[in-house]
Amino acid sequence: MAASTAAAAPLGATSTTGTLASGEPFVTATFSAPTNIAVIKYWGKRDVKLNLPINSSVSVTLNQDDLRAMTSVMISPAFEKDRLWLNGEEEDVSKSKRIQTVLAGIRAIATDRTLADGTVVPAAELADPSKWRAHIVSANSFPTAAGLASSAAGYACLTRVLAEVYGAAEPTPNALTAIARQGSGSASRSLYGGFVRWNMGAAADGSDSFAEQVATADHWPDLEVIVCVVSADKKETGSTAGMTTSVETSELLAHRAAAVVEPRLSAIEAAYTARDFPTFGAITMRDSNQFHACCLDTFPPIFYMNDVSKRLIALVHRFNAKHGSIVAAYTFDAGPNAVIYTTKAHTAALLATVMAHFPRPAALASDAEYVSSAPALEAAKAAGVPAGLECPSGDEDVGAVRYIYKTTPGDGPRRLDDSASLVDSATGTPAASAAAGAATAGSAGMAAALA
Amino acid sequence: MAASTAAAAPLGATSTTGTLASGEPFVTATFSAPTNIAVIKYWGKRDVKLNLPINSSVSVTLNQDDLRAMTSVMISPAFEKDRLWLNGEEEDVSKSKRIQTVLAGIRAIATDRTLADGTVVPAAELADPSKWRAHIVSANSFPTAAGLASSAAGYACLTRVLAEVYGAAEPTPNALTAIARQGSGSASRSLYGGFVRWNMGAAADGSDSFAEQVATADHWPDLEVIVCVVSADKKETGSTAGMTTSVETSELLAHRAAAVVEPRLSAIEAAYTARDFPTFGAITMRDSNQFHACCLDTFPPIFYMNDVSKRLIALVHRFNAKHGSIVAAYTFDAGPNAVIYTTKAHTAALLATVMAHFPRPAALASDAEYVSSAPALEAAKAAGVPAGLECPSGDEDVGAVRYIYKTTPGDGPRRLDDSASLVDSATGTPAASAAAGAATAGSAGMAAALA
Repeated sequence: MAASTAAAAPLGATSTTGTLASGEPFVTATFSAPTNIAVIKYWGKRDVKLNLPINSSVSVTLNQDDLRAMTSVMISPAFEKDRLWLNGEEEDVSKSKRIQTVLAGIRAIATDRTLADGTVVPAAELADPSKWRAHIVSANSFPTAAGLASSAAGYACLTRVLAEVYGAAEPTPNALTAIARQGSGSASRSLYGGFVRWNMGAAADGSDSFAEQVATADHWPDLEVIVCVVSADKKETGSTAGMTTSVETSELLAHRAAAVVEPRLSAIEAAYTARDFPTFGAITMRDSNQFHACCLDTFPPIFYMNDVSKRLIALVHRFNAKHGSIVAAYTFDAGPNAVIYTTKAHTAALLATVMAHFPRPAALASDAEYVSSAPALEAAKAAGVPAGLECPSGDEDVGAVRYIYKTTPGDGPRRLDDSASLVDSATGTPAASAAAGAATAGSAGMAAALA
Repeated sequence: MAASTAAAAPLGATSTTGTLASGEPFVTATFSAPTNIAVIKYWGKRDVKLNLPINSSVSVTLNQDDLRAMTSVMISPAFEKDRLWLNGEEEDVSKSKRIQTVLAGIRAIATDRTLADGTVVPAAELADPSKWRAHIVSANSFPTAAGLASSAAGYACLTRVLAEVYGAAEPTPNALTAIARQGSGSASRSLYGGFVRWNMGAAADGSDSFAEQVATADHWPDLEVIVCVVSADKKETGSTAGMTTSVETSELLAHRAAAVVEPRLSAIEAAYTARDFPTFGAITMRDSNQFHACCLDTFPPIFYMNDVSKRLIALVHRFNAKHGSIVAAYTFDAGPNAVIYTTKAHTAALLATVMAHFPRPAALASDAEYVSSAPALEAAKAAGVPAGLECPSGDEDVGAVRYIYKTTPGDGPRRLDDSASLVDSATGTPAASAAAGAATAGSAGMAAALA
């Protein structure tokens, strides 16, 4: 597969220069970035500090019209230190090794910057944290707690926008993804749209552990996605801690990484390229199940799926049995939420089926507050539940699914207009819109539904 | 380890001869047999017809004072055909391949029988189903639906009592266990008490796939067992169908059988022999988790544990964490019930802890109806819940556990007195006591609790 770069334009070409009210210069940019859902799962690190995985993985990037992180960065010699505001709250950058690692990684490949007044700031000065400092303001369009790979979108967005303001020059193709990887492993895959592989690599320094695009978002326009956000009883085991315990204790995980994943990667990439849903779907479901099997083989065992997840799994298998072939495929990350891939021909009936078995929570006044897409909801109502898949009266599990997204595969990080910036260009601090959740525009009822 | 035989007395030495009201002769005997709970699990057959496993397994035999199958067999030339009554209902023997296989296996090793009047019936005549036929009457002390390996106890009991009435001569040591195995794989292990290994064997005809005793029931008097019967939503995947799908689809199961089980067998047998609970418990829990992991890696996935099972697992890990070492160890068979091994020093506190988090179902009037053992209940109330393991108010899961057995390891099948026979010695048909559930004597409230 051909290597690809994060954006067609050279990094830094779209950043904005200007001056603060105090008269000091700044460089700024705002990006949004998508989340991604792995179909061959990443579980287990061979190097915890560098986020190097024990196996390669592949994922589908989701459409950031529906789910996204959004980050504005402004750098200026006027700022006293690097600062970060996340979803309206300031976080202590000095306490986040990961943020610091990404910042240092981008600064190390900064290029000279010409300011609005024609002054050229040499790369060495721009990248010197005692001279130019960064204000980072970030927001997710989805609650972190919902467990939809918010860290993947967040670190991909951070990496991409930092690369823009610092005019980062990638020393090798896909080098940005290796920087994002050090923030969050799966973030490496959110720097591209479509179908993306993160190569595990072999080098001890992680230089060959980067992501690359296998197919663009428009390669398979028929593919669609339904995300069922499931109520979780309590905080799950964090994925970093979980992976460490799994690597230390699960013999099945070691076997999976050594012998199972590679043939699956080739097979699912071929299926995606050929738009072969039955094969893509079968491998997706089997790999999700195997990931959770390895969590269960961990000691003490880790459970991310719950009884609602299991009922969703059973329902997808019934839906497929009804159709006589695999037309829908679930996958579960480190939480109980189901992400279900399907194709346009089946989305409406699948959504109707899920809604029949899992009616909206009593607290939601209408299905319009339950499903992210009004057209998808309308199509589901029109399609109805396929004969034989109705929910027997009394078996409905009301409220077990809290919210349903209907989305599609999508493209990589996007440069947003400066008018959407989360940083005030006069003060260099968060704009009023940042705290109000500017990023949530595309998903009106969701924040309330998941509150 | 030394091979062992099913009983000290020669097979057949304790059977009773007599005459029916019609004047025709009979031979009869009544046995009870225990269930057993594997600590290295059996999952996957290399030969479905012969019940040959893909790995060896080991189990603890439970005390038949608490859980048992009971079977009376009477053979007579007066009977028209082989007949079977199970828990008060007649079953069609001609429709059960497994029953027929066990019957044929025992008949093939029958010996000459001297009747009460001194007549000798040659083995060939006794074993000829056109001449002497069997009436089999069987009952379990626990509901089949509760999923406590009732088939293991049942087929072990059937095999043992048939061996008695036919005076079976084992051609090789442990040959009876290979016959029981063909009824139900795990039944092979219920022919011995204590700690029992079922060797997978290598021969295509299954002749070397038999069980043998590793340690007697009195080897580790400190070991105790708590069984939590958990509400199941619906019928689980049957184990024979589940194993077939697992063998066909799970790469993790293949790896488990090929590389993981053998070292675990040696380690857990050494731990049991040395009465080393922390090692015994750790391996027990890890092997249970791995078995269920392989079920989840099956496609479509099989789930035997539910959210209640998971809460019991978490509670045992908390109990151990509180004690700073492994003092309790859960294991789950093909269902949601938890079997928890512990030692005498911890049984009372463990039972109190389980009861605090899982109070009795509302339908039970008192804890005396919830726990099988009155002394264990009293000890639990006296011990109380260890500090730090209390259930936060409102978190109690009332009724999620339906019934609790407190038991111990136990011995192998027992010859019961003819007065307990489930067969009427005048008519050769089920005694009145058979339908009334004679076998339930040791577990008064249980039948009601699980009804």
